[in-house]
Amino acid sequence: MTRTVNRQVLLRSRPTGIPQAEHFEIVESPVPQPGDGQVLVRNLVLSVEPAMRGWVNAVANYSDPVPIGAVMRSLAIGRVEASRAPGFAPGDIVTGLFGWQDYAVVPARGIERSLPPSDLPVTTALGVLGLNGLSAYFALLDIGQPRPGDTVVVSTAAGSVGSCVGQIARIKGCRAVGIAGGPVKQRQCLEDFGYDAAIDYKAEGFEAALDAACPRGIDVYFDNTSGAISDAVLRRLAVGARVVICGTAAVASWDPIPLGPRVERHLLVRRARMQGFLVFDFVKRFGEARRELEGWVRAGQIRYREDFLDGLEHAPGAIAGLYRGENLGKRLIRIAPGPD
Amino acid sequence: MTRTVNRQVLLRSRPTGIPQAEHFEIVESPVPQPGDGQVLVRNLVLSVEPAMRGWVNAVANYSDPVPIGAVMRSLAIGRVEASRAPGFAPGDIVTGLFGWQDYAVVPARGIERSLPPSDLPVTTALGVLGLNGLSAYFALLDIGQPRPGDTVVVSTAAGSVGSCVGQIARIKGCRAVGIAGGPVKQRQCLEDFGYDAAIDYKAEGFEAALDAACPRGIDVYFDNTSGAISDAVLRRLAVGARVVICGTAAVASWDPIPLGPRVERHLLVRRARMQGFLVFDFVKRFGEARRELEGWVRAGQIRYREDFLDGLEHAPGAIAGLYRGENLGKRLIRIAPGPD
Repeated sequence: MTRTVNRQVLLRSRPTGIPQAEHFEIVESPVPQPGDGQVLVRNLVLSVEPAMRGWVNAVANYSDPVPIGAVMRSLAIGRVEASRAPGFAPGDIVTGLFGWQDYAVVPARGIERSLPPSDLPVTTALGVLGLNGLSAYFALLDIGQPRPGDTVVVSTAAGSVGSCVGQIARIKGCRAVGIAGGPVKQRQCLEDFGYDAAIDYKAEGFEAALDAACPRGIDVYFDNTSGAISDAVLRRLAVGARVVICGTAAVASWDPIPLGPRVERHLLVRRARMQGFLVFDFVKRFGEARRELEGWVRAGQIRYREDFLDGLEHAPGAIAGLYRGENLGKRLIRIAPGPD
Repeated sequence: MTRTVNRQVLLRSRPTGIPQAEHFEIVESPVPQPGDGQVLVRNLVLSVEPAMRGWVNAVANYSDPVPIGAVMRSLAIGRVEASRAPGFAPGDIVTGLFGWQDYAVVPARGIERSLPPSDLPVTTALGVLGLNGLSAYFALLDIGQPRPGDTVVVSTAAGSVGSCVGQIARIKGCRAVGIAGGPVKQRQCLEDFGYDAAIDYKAEGFEAALDAACPRGIDVYFDNTSGAISDAVLRRLAVGARVVICGTAAVASWDPIPLGPRVERHLLVRRARMQGFLVFDFVKRFGEARRELEGWVRAGQIRYREDFLDGLEHAPGAIAGLYRGENLGKRLIRIAPGPD
């Protein structure tokens, strides 16, 4: 499905909170050609993730903000169409930060890795075997440091990272308690992802359900939300608890910083720890982690769900939908068939 | 100075915030006599510390609250007057939780340790070589994990724990920045305790002074205050920062939990850590730490200040005075001469 124009999703204006469709525009331009040392990639599947909010935000962050007028930054899976770089040939399936567009010209070092043929779907490279699974792996194991018998509570429990955290916690002999929004996701936690207990935070009696699910307190809290969910969890920490801050999906804007109950006394009395996590701090160990995750996926110990949007025109509104919780699984945008 | 009556400071009512003089009363009773396995101790010096607020508070805590009508819990130094327990003889100088009273009858295991004759003042057992110094030692080294060249910021920098933290940070090759209230304590930080910079948080331009003192951000924050001081420090954390929560002196009451700016985003973007600290988790290593602290005190690398109140009648108001910041150094109450 070779195209003669390259559709690109550009950042049109800078949101202060969650990026909405109107912050982007789709433009068309000629398909670019690779220069020396470059590769032309035809994107097949684009990734949508909560971190994109931070990428377009002007507030100081761990990466430079996407400039106004630039192609939206995004992980993608693509097929090499033309190569003027050693090590890459037409037909190769590759992944990297290729952006929300049909075609990307990237330098060889802009390709994160080639994806060899595998019995696992290629899209796992953007989910359970990509940054989602890697985030779950390092956030839980290195920062959360779960011990067998621990009670591990996961917010955004049915999400692409959270669902993986819950399953790794179970693999490590912990009791996994998921918090998710609505009865569908709650059921998904129990039926698809094997949580020992799942709680709908939007339902009446959320705190009582949390008490019932965590009678001995909470040893590890994997936090992807901040906000009221975290406030309830932090009141129930066990002595020596570890809180992993991976995301803050429940906070619409950090400018200005919203108020919440102070955490110092909880941390002091429980001798607990809160620690921020960024997956890119673990790049050198990605290979090791990916091999272990692959093994768990093949063994059926880690299951995953994917949520496909069909067509580039869905990209501008895809982040806002994610924050509204409308996806059931890793959100992806298919823009061309393949890799076959 | 043997007495015929035992004056005791009892907890009369339970404060919700900082204990004031009216929450205590002084009563007289006969001097008790030791039973089998017990020791009669004449208290010489009583300790006053911020943790006492927690000891009298009804809110769940790391120790049972002092019952209404009971002698106020306190560390003290005393002389054994009579002993019916092996290992203790009249004249021994001992320390332990003997309470705010002239005389205590305690079981042998209620004596924390005997204080052998030393070239260092016996009162150091309640300060720099007691829980204050031990808190500084473990909180900074084990939780804060300072590295040479790190910027270490200390709140309550001139206090008995904070001053020790700042000096240990310097011993470990760090840049020590003290935050204290008022010009007298600010000067004390620089002149007595050797901080590289000292900031008066009550003065105009506190945040600008913090920026000037920490141009590369803050690697370790030893927090004894919470509140507005911490809010300012947390905005300036360096990547990988460690925040040690040792006390919350700036928060008058935790019931209900006061609001403050949410910390999750700071921790996430800086991959920083906040962790609560309780010195009693390190009891097994007290001996090791005390030997090292003694060496530093003898070498002049750690200096300390003491703030004496004279007479048991000052005890009821002593905690409130501490929270008002009226002491300059470790607050002690001398109630009898000695040990000589």
